[in-house]
Amino acid sequence: MGGDKGRWIKRIGVKIKPPSLGDNTGDTDRLIKGIEKSFPGSDIVLELALIKKTPGFLREHGYEVEALLYQDASKWKLFDLLAGQGERPLYGLAVDLGTSTVVVRLVSLDGDKVGAESSFLNPQTEIGTDILTRIQHAGRPGGLAELQKLVVERMNREILLVAAKQGITPEQIVGMAVAGNTTMAHLFLGLDPHWLCREPYIPAANRFPLLKAGEVGVGIQPEAPVLVLPNVGSYLGGDLIAGIVASGMAEREELSILVDVGTNAEIVLGNRDWLVGCAGAAGPALEGGVANMGMMAGPGAIDKVIIDGATGEVRVRTIQDVRPVGICGSGLIDLAAQLFLAGMIDVQGKFIAGKCGKKLKEIEGILNFIVVSSEASATGFDLTLAQTDIDSLLRSKAAMFTILSTVTSMVNVSLKDIANFFVAGTFGAYIDPRSAITLGMLPDLPPETYKPLGNTSLAGATKVLLSRKAKAKAYEIRDKITYVELNVNQEFMNLFSAARFIPHTDPTLFPSVRLS
Amino acid sequence: MGGDKGRWIKRIGVKIKPPSLGDNTGDTDRLIKGIEKSFPGSDIVLELALIKKTPGFLREHGYEVEALLYQDASKWKLFDLLAGQGERPLYGLAVDLGTSTVVVRLVSLDGDKVGAESSFLNPQTEIGTDILTRIQHAGRPGGLAELQKLVVERMNREILLVAAKQGITPEQIVGMAVAGNTTMAHLFLGLDPHWLCREPYIPAANRFPLLKAGEVGVGIQPEAPVLVLPNVGSYLGGDLIAGIVASGMAEREELSILVDVGTNAEIVLGNRDWLVGCAGAAGPALEGGVANMGMMAGPGAIDKVIIDGATGEVRVRTIQDVRPVGICGSGLIDLAAQLFLAGMIDVQGKFIAGKCGKKLKEIEGILNFIVVSSEASATGFDLTLAQTDIDSLLRSKAAMFTILSTVTSMVNVSLKDIANFFVAGTFGAYIDPRSAITLGMLPDLPPETYKPLGNTSLAGATKVLLSRKAKAKAYEIRDKITYVELNVNQEFMNLFSAARFIPHTDPTLFPSVRLS
Repeated sequence: MGGDKGRWIKRIGVKIKPPSLGDNTGDTDRLIKGIEKSFPGSDIVLELALIKKTPGFLREHGYEVEALLYQDASKWKLFDLLAGQGERPLYGLAVDLGTSTVVVRLVSLDGDKVGAESSFLNPQTEIGTDILTRIQHAGRPGGLAELQKLVVERMNREILLVAAKQGITPEQIVGMAVAGNTTMAHLFLGLDPHWLCREPYIPAANRFPLLKAGEVGVGIQPEAPVLVLPNVGSYLGGDLIAGIVASGMAEREELSILVDVGTNAEIVLGNRDWLVGCAGAAGPALEGGVANMGMMAGPGAIDKVIIDGATGEVRVRTIQDVRPVGICGSGLIDLAAQLFLAGMIDVQGKFIAGKCGKKLKEIEGILNFIVVSSEASATGFDLTLAQTDIDSLLRSKAAMFTILSTVTSMVNVSLKDIANFFVAGTFGAYIDPRSAITLGMLPDLPPETYKPLGNTSLAGATKVLLSRKAKAKAYEIRDKITYVELNVNQEFMNLFSAARFIPHTDPTLFPSVRLS
Repeated sequence: MGGDKGRWIKRIGVKIKPPSLGDNTGDTDRLIKGIEKSFPGSDIVLELALIKKTPGFLREHGYEVEALLYQDASKWKLFDLLAGQGERPLYGLAVDLGTSTVVVRLVSLDGDKVGAESSFLNPQTEIGTDILTRIQHAGRPGGLAELQKLVVERMNREILLVAAKQGITPEQIVGMAVAGNTTMAHLFLGLDPHWLCREPYIPAANRFPLLKAGEVGVGIQPEAPVLVLPNVGSYLGGDLIAGIVASGMAEREELSILVDVGTNAEIVLGNRDWLVGCAGAAGPALEGGVANMGMMAGPGAIDKVIIDGATGEVRVRTIQDVRPVGICGSGLIDLAAQLFLAGMIDVQGKFIAGKCGKKLKEIEGILNFIVVSSEASATGFDLTLAQTDIDSLLRSKAAMFTILSTVTSMVNVSLKDIANFFVAGTFGAYIDPRSAITLGMLPDLPPETYKPLGNTSLAGATKVLLSRKAKAKAYEIRDKITYVELNVNQEFMNLFSAARFIPHTDPTLFPSVRLS
C-alpha cells in the first residue's frame, strides 16, 4: 500500500534522523519532511491533535514510525502515527447504506482482499419502512438525531462484529466509503432531509466533504476519513453513483444502461462521453413485495419456473433448494413468462381457464393459479398467483419498459443500440433476461447483453474506498450526469398502456418472443 | 472587504436564485456557486456543521446572505453565513502573546482601522515569571492544561472587554493572529514545551495549521481562523517573525538589522535576499530589571537624563512628567552615558570620586550615586545608582555589542553597512541612540539609522491578520531565515571583554564618541 500510487488512504513507513543541534527542525516539520522523502510531491497537512501526539511518539519509537495519510483534494492529510513498519493490518470499510438493508464490508488496504462482510436491517425501519415516513419523523423534535443515532449505533455494533470476525480492532479500520440514496446519506450525517421531499426537491448538499469518523460517530479510528458518495439530487443518490462506478459504464465507448430496481427503478444511460439518469416508480412488483406469495430473495423463494406447454406441469426451483415458501421477483417474472408461453394467460395477462384447468381456483372472488400445492410447499398451504398479482406485475413491467423507452428516446438513441444492459441488485442477480423479454419488460436484446452486477452500491463503495481514480471518477460522474425528469404526460401514458400487453401491442418490438 | 483581494479573511455578499425544478442543485452547492460568481477562482470548501446550517438559513433569509471565508493554503474555507449585506461590522484580533505582557487589539476587517486595544499581565507569571519555570510546570500532571487555561481564560475576559469598548459582540470577531515566542505559542495551543529547553531544543512544530477559535478555546466566533505565527526554533519565535514582517526589512534591498530586547536579545540581520537570526542573553539590565532603582517604563520612570559637565547637576525627565519613582532601561543608558561624558565614571564605569563629589554615598559597602534626592523623588528616598548597577549595565551592553559584532562578522558584513537599525519594544521606543552609542552598546552609526518600532510583535500580527501578502510573507521569512548559534567560545569572550569598556577598548570603532 505504501508504494501504491493508486490509493487515497496510505500508510507510509518513515525513518527520520533524530534532531540535533545542527538540525533543530520542529518535530512535525521533520516528520513531514521524512514522509515527503518516500512520498515525493505530497502536500501534507495535519491537525493540532496530531501535533500534540508527535513529539512523544517519535521519541518513544526511535523516530521510526508509520504515517497514515489520506488525500483530501490536492492535500494529503496526516491523520495518525503508528508504531512499527507495516506489521499491523489495516482495513477500510465499504458500506451500502440501504433504506431496508445495510451492508458493511471490510476491505484490506494492504492488498485488495475483501474481508468480513455483514448485513443488517436498517433500524430506521422501526420508524418507517418507507423514506417519506422517515423524512416526516426527522421533522419532529429530536427526530433527526434519533434517526441518525439508530443507524450509526447499529452500524457500530456490526463493525465490532466484522472486526472480531477479521481478528482486528475497530481502530485498524482507517477509512470508510458509504453509498446510499440521498435521504439515507442525509440521515446518516444528521442533515435535515426536509427539503428532499418537497418541490423542488433540494438536498442540503450534493457533495459532502470528507468527514472524520469521530465527527459522524462511527466506531472506527476516530480520525479516519469517511467518504459519503455524492448525489445528483433527491432522486439520484450516491448509491447510483456507486453503481455507475461499479459498472464501469462511464469509461466505455459503447452505450450502456444500468438499471437498479429497488423501491424506485433508477436508470442510467450513457457512455464515457455522457450520462443521463432518471428514476421512476416501477419496483414493488419486481421486488416480490406485491404478489400474494411474494417474498424477498432468500431460502425457499422460488426463483425459477418452467411450465411444460403440453402437460401444463409446473416445475419450480427455490433458492437453496428447500421446499418452496414463496416467490421472489425473478421467480414471478419467470412464472408469468412461462404461463404466457404455455398459453395459460393471454396477452392481457388474464388466465385462460381452458388451459389452466384444475390449477385455477377462486379465492375471495379472485381467480388464483396454484403454483405449488399445499403438499409440496413448506407452508402447508397452496402457493398461488392471483389474477391481481399478474395485473400488478404487468403494470410494473409496463412502467419499466416505458421508462426505458422514454429515456432512450429523450436522448435520441434506440434501445437496440444498447451494448451492455447492467442489472443491479438482487433482482438483477436472479432474473432470467429471457423471461423478462418474453413479458416485454426488458427490451428484446441478445440475452448476453444483460449483465447482472449484484450489489453495485457496495461494489462501487469498495472501489471508491480503494482507489484514488475511482474516487475521482465518482465525483466526475456526479458532475457529468444529467438528471432527466420523466414527465408522466399523455404520451407517457399512451406508451404505458401499450406496454401493459404481453409482450407489447407492437410485437415487432419483440421479434424473439414467439408463442411455443 | 468583499472586493479586497488582499485579505485572507473575507465577507462576500451572495444573492442566489432560489431553487426550482429546472435547477435542483443542492443548497450548499448552490451557495458555493453563488460565492464563486462574485469571487471567481476561489476553491471553496466547508464543513458538516455549515452544511447543516445552510438549508434553513438560506430560506430564512430569502437566499440573500453574507458568506464568511478564509483562505487556508489554496482553498477558501466557508466558515459562516450571516444575515444582511455588510451591515454588521466585523473585526479581527491581533495578539502579542508576551511572556510578561499580553496585548490584544481589535482591527476592523472592513477597513484597516485599529480599534480597541488592551493589555494584561500574562497570568502564567503566577506559575513563574521566567519561561523555564513554566516549562517545568507543564511537565507536572495537569500543568500544561493549567498553563493553557490560565492564558486563554484571561484572554477571553480581555476580549469581552475590548469587544464591549468597541460596541460589538465577541462573535463579530472572526479571525485572529497571534505572535508569541515559541514557548508561549506552545503553551497557548496546549503543546508540550518539554523539548524546547532540552538539547537540541526542538519545538513540537515550526508551522501551526490554521486552527478554529473553538478548538483553542478562544472566545470569538468559534469557527474563526486562529493563525499562530510560525517559529524558526526554540529561540526564534513567531514574535520575531512578526517583527520582521512589521519592519519590512525582508522586502528591502539594503541591509537592515532588527533588535528586540526582552529577556533575551533577539537579533535579525539581512535584506530581501537573506536573513540570519540569533538570540543571546543581553537583556536584563536594559529592561530596568537589574538596577537598584530600576523599573519598567511607566509613569514616574526616568527615561532621560542630562548632566551638566561643568556643574555636575543632574536633570531628569520622567514618563508622564511626574515625580521620579525609578529608572527604566533607556533612562539607565542615558544616565550612564551622561556620567561618562561628564567624567564622573571612567572607561571601566567606575565612579570618579573627585568628580562625583557629594553625590556619592556608600550603602552597605557599595558606592552609590544619588540621581534624585529624597526631597525630589516620589518615594521619599534617594534614588541611587550603585557601582554594581553600572557593572551590570556594562556587562549587558558588552553582550549586546559582542552579539552584534559576532553576527555581522559571521556573515561577512560590517556593522557600518547597516542602513536601518530597527529597535523593537519599549526599549526601542525610549532609548536615545546617542547615549547607547556613547556607552558602546550600539554601533557608531548616524543616529537617523536607528528606528524605534514599538511593539513589532503586535504590529506584525496586525499586518498578518489583515493581509494575505503579509501572511504569506511570514511563512516565507520563516523558511528563509537562518538561525545562527552564537558559540560562546574564546573569541566571543575576548570580544566581550573588550566591549566592557566605555565605549570600547578600540575607540576607532566609535569615532563620534568624544569626551566633552
